[in-house]
Amino acid sequence: MSLGIVFLSEVMGTMMLTLLGCGVVANVALRGTKGNAGGFLMVNWGWGLAVMAGVFVAAKSGAHLNPAVTVGILSSGATDYAPNVPISFGSTLTYFGGEMLGAFLGAVVCWLAYKQHFDDEPDGATKLGVFSTGPAKRSYGWNVVTEIIGTFVLVFVILHFGGGVTGLGPLPVALLVVAIGASLGGPTGYAINPARDLGPRIAHALLPIKGKGASDWSYSWVPIVGPLAGGALGGLMAQWLPLVTK
Amino acid sequence: MSLGIVFLSEVMGTMMLTLLGCGVVANVALRGTKGNAGGFLMVNWGWGLAVMAGVFVAAKSGAHLNPAVTVGILSSGATDYAPNVPISFGSTLTYFGGEMLGAFLGAVVCWLAYKQHFDDEPDGATKLGVFSTGPAKRSYGWNVVTEIIGTFVLVFVILHFGGGVTGLGPLPVALLVVAIGASLGGPTGYAINPARDLGPRIAHALLPIKGKGASDWSYSWVPIVGPLAGGALGGLMAQWLPLVTK
Amino acid sequence: MSLGIVFLSEVMGTMMLTLLGCGVVANVALRGTKGNAGGFLMVNWGWGLAVMAGVFVAAKSGAHLNPAVTVGILSSGATDYAPNVPISFGSTLTYFGGEMLGAFLGAVVCWLAYKQHFDDEPDGATKLGVFSTGPAKRSYGWNVVTEIIGTFVLVFVILHFGGGVTGLGPLPVALLVVAIGASLGGPTGYAINPARDLGPRIAHALLPIKGKGASDWSYSWVPIVGPLAGGALGGLMAQWLPLVTK
Amino acid sequence: MSLGIVFLSEVMGTMMLTLLGCGVVANVALRGTKGNAGGFLMVNWGWGLAVMAGVFVAAKSGAHLNPAVTVGILSSGATDYAPNVPISFGSTLTYFGGEMLGAFLGAVVCWLAYKQHFDDEPDGATKLGVFSTGPAKRSYGWNVVTEIIGTFVLVFVILHFGGGVTGLGPLPVALLVVAIGASLGGPTGYAINPARDLGPRIAHALLPIKGKGASDWSYSWVPIVGPLAGGALGGLMAQWLPLVTK
Repeated sequence: MSLGIVFLSEVMGTMMLTLLGCGVVANVALRGTKGNAGGFLMVNWGWGLAVMAGVFVAAKSGAHLNPAVTVGILSSGATDYAPNVPISFGSTLTYFGGEMLGAFLGAVVCWLAYKQHFDDEPDGATKLGVFSTGPAKRSYGWNVVTEIIGTFVLVFVILHFGGGVTGLGPLPVALLVVAIGASLGGPTGYAINPARDLGPRIAHALLPIKGKGASDWSYSWVPIVGPLAGGALGGLMAQWLPLVTK
Repeated sequence: MSLGIVFLSEVMGTMMLTLLGCGVVANVALRGTKGNAGGFLMVNWGWGLAVMAGVFVAAKSGAHLNPAVTVGILSSGATDYAPNVPISFGSTLTYFGGEMLGAFLGAVVCWLAYKQHFDDEPDGATKLGVFSTGPAKRSYGWNVVTEIIGTFVLVFVILHFGGGVTGLGPLPVALLVVAIGASLGGPTGYAINPARDLGPRIAHALLPIKGKGASDWSYSWVPIVGPLAGGALGGLMAQWLPLVTK
Repeated sequence: MSLGIVFLSEVMGTMMLTLLGCGVVANVALRGTKGNAGGFLMVNWGWGLAVMAGVFVAAKSGAHLNPAVTVGILSSGATDYAPNVPISFGSTLTYFGGEMLGAFLGAVVCWLAYKQHFDDEPDGATKLGVFSTGPAKRSYGWNVVTEIIGTFVLVFVILHFGGGVTGLGPLPVALLVVAIGASLGGPTGYAINPARDLGPRIAHALLPIKGKGASDWSYSWVPIVGPLAGGALGGLMAQWLPLVTK
Repeated sequence: MSLGIVFLSEVMGTMMLTLLGCGVVANVALRGTKGNAGGFLMVNWGWGLAVMAGVFVAAKSGAHLNPAVTVGILSSGATDYAPNVPISFGSTLTYFGGEMLGAFLGAVVCWLAYKQHFDDEPDGATKLGVFSTGPAKRSYGWNVVTEIIGTFVLVFVILHFGGGVTGLGPLPVALLVVAIGASLGGPTGYAINPARDLGPRIAHALLPIKGKGASDWSYSWVPIVGPLAGGALGGLMAQWLPLVTK
């Protein structure tokens, strides 16, 4: 498959991911929406099903949608990122680029969908929270640990799925993301995906959001380093342990 | 397949859709029901699974249940609306007609199921909200934008489903509608379907609902124009982008 | 298949149904449980997944678990209740008997599981509500209407399922019951099954429940007549309308 | 298959189970998390999907993840615990050992993920509740009864599943655990798994958790004896009743 199609596939899939994922946070958090105060389980379902939508759209490229997944596949000893997409420096960058651009675009569209509610929301931190994750209790070390654990679970379990991404295939990964959110999302809001966090954070920094505050760049490395490390660990352990069903 | 069967199929499927969909809003919103104040996530599940029920019933006609889906398939460059149902002016009108009639009938039956609770509910806007959508913050332009985005997601992702409508096939579209509701339903209540909004609105206008208020016709064009535009956009992009798995 | 196996299958499946179904109401309603005040959506999921469990167990007999489903299949023009179980007066009574006995037994086991919380609960109506349904607003006519509509949806949609009861087959019916509960359960608590209501009501009358009140026999005919009529209507309409995929 | 792989498979799968399962309780219960007070249904989904994740990981060994399941298969009259894993004294101990070690390790990792929130939580009983189950109302006899019933349902229904553990196979068991939690978890918090309770309880006793209280060893036998008895009963009844589809 051409890398152009891989790129486009990851762009569109990751755009779906952050459009719907940031969207559910906007619905639960911003002032005056119909889903206001809908609860953390609603956020978990929203993000999980956002992954499902993205995986359907990006089936052609294997639907990584997440640099930590790309890194996890790389470190798992695989030879291909998807059918007919061999692993190489170029294809790795293509995934990363598509994921980042898609994550950015999805956040922009989410902002358009909730434009009036962003305008009405007085709290800058709440607005940022629609775009990017932030810790419940700031401690870079422990926050990285939590992100490593969450992303390890994501990548390690995905690599033990038996099936593909067609038909109902996207359902298990969606439910896995619901699980990680409900179970491991408490301390850091579960980025578990560098693009999902950095792309929307850049959008937050660039968009003319009324009354926005800072984009909290001092925290921004945590949801990059933690997920990449967790994804690599997941891939390595999947490679070392003889549990993957071929 | 005869257009009569297509018509009947869409009538019955869309009737299921609005019966169960309007029903969950009635349960959450009307005074004295057992599900009162059940929350927005319950509404999202109710509408999503309403789609599932409708898709099972209308499998023969491809289960559009939604003029925006019909328009999306049309603009996607397909030649058939369903197996053995070629696209034509007549078949398009058949889908539209069946969807509208079914959506109207489902709302009527929902009113019967909740008759006593409609009678007891003092607030007219709450009663209308069981039938049709309304904006959290009225601004026709932004409301149309939100409906375009939501319906684009619906149609674009559906067109990237690999499978059919038998067996568990209806599950992904159900979950997709849960996702759109949770994630993009905050500003306008996610009509994402002209028939789902207009059919029940007509029912609201015609039925002898005790103490009902106005049917808010000034807003009624938004959940028609937005979804049709979003569906067309979804179909066009699915046609232009080479991501659909044949 | 021998009618003895049909009977046993329906007993065990319907026992699972009311054990888990009455159980979720006990958890949400009785004093001092861990799920107290868990909300109506939790009740909907509990009953829906109770159906799933029962369908797995009763796969051999086609997993009716509900006289309204038996009547619906009868009125749909089918010749068999399940593979190798031809429709006859004897097999019909076998289904009814197994469903009733199973529903009774499941309620007894549910009482044992929640024994201490029944003892601590001061309100007799709350205790009865764990066993049987009751109307949010008592009006026999409208209550029957609601039960007819809910059971019509159950039976009509089930008859349009394409698949069997093995593997993931029980999932759609589970989700359909979640849908009916969320959407049409507001007025009467959705019996939609005469055995599910009458069996536990008899258990309530016979068991030595501490501080129990009356078993509300004056209402007990509503969740029998309504579901039987709705099931028959669903079967007839499935027969008349040419939408069932063979 | 070598027993070493069986052991490793059960360790990793059960580690996933308690990492995600204890994690959702931590998120809902500990001070200052993003999911605080998320409700019992969120706990039910968290534990159910934790099972799903564990089953994917431990597919090679049949994904028991639970001594009560191992005992249930043993008492069901089966000859193998999984394809190519014959039942023997050695294989039984291998399952038990892997389940216990995995359950312990998952609780340790959960503690790391929520380290700061354990530190901030003032209530010792709340901390223990993240690791192990405790009764809503202490009465060893009735608590055992509830655990027997819950585990009987788990094992009896699992033995009536028709399918395997690949692809979407793990979904039904996940949903079954959601069902048992919602419906039968009210009195004891549904251990339904000796390893899930004892492994984390040992972790609670050994870990240097700030301000922890006692590990409540006086209750610890209940979630061992009840589940083992319930699992054995489920296996025996599945063997005696002719309802399992071969």
